[in-house]
Amino acid sequence: MSMEHKPQRGFIIPIGGREEKEVNPRVLERFVELSGGKDAVISIIPTASNLEDTGDRYVEIFARLGVTKIYNNNIVNRQDANNEIFVKQLTESTGIFMTGGNQLLLSTVLGGTTVARMIRKRNAEGVPVAGTSAGAAFIPEHMIASGDSGLIPRVGGVTIAPGLGLTNKVMIDQHFSQRNRLGRLLTALSYNPYKTGIGVDEDTAAIIGPDGDIEAVGSGALTIVDMSKVEYSSVASTAPGDAISLVGVKIHTLLDGDRYDPKMHEVIHKKQSV
Amino acid sequence: MSMEHKPQRGFIIPIGGREEKEVNPRVLERFVELSGGKDAVISIIPTASNLEDTGDRYVEIFARLGVTKIYNNNIVNRQDANNEIFVKQLTESTGIFMTGGNQLLLSTVLGGTTVARMIRKRNAEGVPVAGTSAGAAFIPEHMIASGDSGLIPRVGGVTIAPGLGLTNKVMIDQHFSQRNRLGRLLTALSYNPYKTGIGVDEDTAAIIGPDGDIEAVGSGALTIVDMSKVEYSSVASTAPGDAISLVGVKIHTLLDGDRYDPKMHEVIHKKQSV
Repeated sequence: MSMEHKPQRGFIIPIGGREEKEVNPRVLERFVELSGGKDAVISIIPTASNLEDTGDRYVEIFARLGVTKIYNNNIVNRQDANNEIFVKQLTESTGIFMTGGNQLLLSTVLGGTTVARMIRKRNAEGVPVAGTSAGAAFIPEHMIASGDSGLIPRVGGVTIAPGLGLTNKVMIDQHFSQRNRLGRLLTALSYNPYKTGIGVDEDTAAIIGPDGDIEAVGSGALTIVDMSKVEYSSVASTAPGDAISLVGVKIHTLLDGDRYDPKMHEVIHKKQSV
Repeated sequence: MSMEHKPQRGFIIPIGGREEKEVNPRVLERFVELSGGKDAVISIIPTASNLEDTGDRYVEIFARLGVTKIYNNNIVNRQDANNEIFVKQLTESTGIFMTGGNQLLLSTVLGGTTVARMIRKRNAEGVPVAGTSAGAAFIPEHMIASGDSGLIPRVGGVTIAPGLGLTNKVMIDQHFSQRNRLGRLLTALSYNPYKTGIGVDEDTAAIIGPDGDIEAVGSGALTIVDMSKVEYSSVASTAPGDAISLVGVKIHTLLDGDRYDPKMHEVIHKKQSV
């Protein structure tokens, strides 16, 4: 009788969009490093983008970062998303990267297909999966599909839809401080206050480790929204368009190198003052 | 070295609301039977309801059906939902029943609390969990929180929020034909077409077995929406309020005793014509 070895799951890497690609591309460098460095095999999924050259552009970017084997999985419809060529390329990859665009193109084209199942399987087997902008939005089980700008949570201020489902423990929003999105992330969290919210700034990544810890990497900030002490949410009794009352939300701002442990609800600063 | 015995998970029983309680209460009778019949210990969770006597009313109903041990878990706020008395009562129960009202009261009061975790744990251990109306809505990972009436799917026609999470394989809607809700269920499924939709009529239950099979019980119909052959969803490119184009949706109407196998996408009629 043999015991199956259960592999450690792969990193999950939502990026807030507009990551630096040339001068100091530390976010993309970190993704390549986690994917195996010079031995990495990277699969790009440009499905969110309406531009034809998005995949090719990232092929060039990753080549410049020293990656020698790069697949551009140019999946544009549901038939493509069940094509064995793309599935095989994902099977060989040690890192998967979803570009920006519109997250609803990712969910409507990939949802329920062999490619979506293979991305989940590869991540469960230890392969890092990153996504920038729309690619970041698509990562969790509960995806923010669209919403309004602003600071205050409001009923109707956000549209939630099923995402890829790599984790159901967090809600993710991107271009976070640049597009003033705290209100819509709070609205998304107000319905069922058990998740951790992660607001990811541009040129910044939330590196979610196999243990669930979240590390900030990049030139911007991560805004962590801790709902574990919420005493009250008024969303059940609030009319459409009205502000939602939330009591007990905790917020942390993390900068490059800082970490957050969502199980203990603790921030670990890069430079601890001991 | 010992091998853990993994228990068979419990039935999941969304009920479409307004289930018959006196003359021919076959839906509630079936829930009691699955919960152990005369040996059943039933926990009622009346959190969705704004009426003070909803829990007591169901205590009377289940007593009339022959249940001798019934707990009314009168949880009205998040502090209650972490109260050890209610957690202990759930631990002793062989069936859990969530009443109607407003599903957002269930999600905002129970989300992230010990009671929510205990309901998931008991169901994983084999205990049936039923919910009627709002209680049915709250059951899945992706909950329909609110929406418009009508036949045609429209962008913005539904609000989705994180639910209790007993299953992520289905989307559930209730009072289904009575409130003309096919359009909003299709909208909910259009974002990421991998789930099975279940529209549950009043006085009707979808009995979801440990293997995922769905059986219809009651005086109305189940409308099963099979998205497995969907070729296209336009939701990514459709403006708010506009109709969504969906290509390849399959729909089945199930009556009392009929079953649906979501893995094989097959209907098994009660009376097979062989």
